[in-house]
Amino acid sequence: MALNPQYEEIGKGFVQQYYLLFDNPSTRSGLANFYNVETSFMTFEGQQIQGSLKIIEKLQSLAFQKINRIITSVDSQPMFDGGVLINVLGRLQCDDDPPHAYNQIFVLKPVANSFYCAHDIFRLNIHDTA
Amino acid sequence: MALNPQYEEIGKGFVQQYYLLFDNPSTRSGLANFYNVETSFMTFEGQQIQGSLKIIEKLQSLAFQKINRIITSVDSQPMFDGGVLINVLGRLQCDDDPPHAYNQIFVLKPVANSFYCAHDIFRLNIHDTA
Repeated sequence: MALNPQYEEIGKGFVQQYYLLFDNPSTRSGLANFYNVETSFMTFEGQQIQGSLKIIEKLQSLAFQKINRIITSVDSQPMFDGGVLINVLGRLQCDDDPPHAYNQIFVLKPVANSFYCAHDIFRLNIHDTA
Repeated sequence: MALNPQYEEIGKGFVQQYYLLFDNPSTRSGLANFYNVETSFMTFEGQQIQGSLKIIEKLQSLAFQKINRIITSVDSQPMFDGGVLINVLGRLQCDDDPPHAYNQIFVLKPVANSFYCAHDIFRLNIHDTA
């Protein structure tokens, strides 16, 4: 049982770093390093996939080139294994589509002196569907 | 490392049971049993509290009596400690207020033959703010 007192900075820092890579098509494949090659889970619009290769394959299949992203809130909680639970709400505009609200959850797990993303759940269109 | 293959049923079942108690003011205090008295975290609209007593105090302080709730999506993932990560999107109407979209995350941890809620993050008004 070891709560990391820096959970808030870790959460905000991860979100910033993650979207910096994500929002540029030429760096998006670098997100593979954030996931475990075997164990990490992603649920993308209800579809569950596992392992960094399949996750990156999914992210690379997203066709848009230009992303305009606004983060509305980042809520982080420390976990007793030293990890961090992160909840992001925001708004996304891809290419010339209308903007959509979205929700993304990350669970970070400690490894060596860093973290990897063990769980990732993404939902777009919460504005329209909820 | 033990993934629970029933994670989806566990997630859906928990959400159903939780909101059944929550949405009836006369049973809301029963939610205390879902949280650990010391360790459970809740973040309610950005305010972090810890322990079942403070969490229930917060939930009991919500003044509305009548809740009309629509669940839009429940995404669950198995965790390697046997727990379940749950993401809920839905819509809430309290008393005569206009309906608001909301987002709630639960992390369930196994204990004996059941689960308790170790992490809970709630955000209302995602429709308006995101």
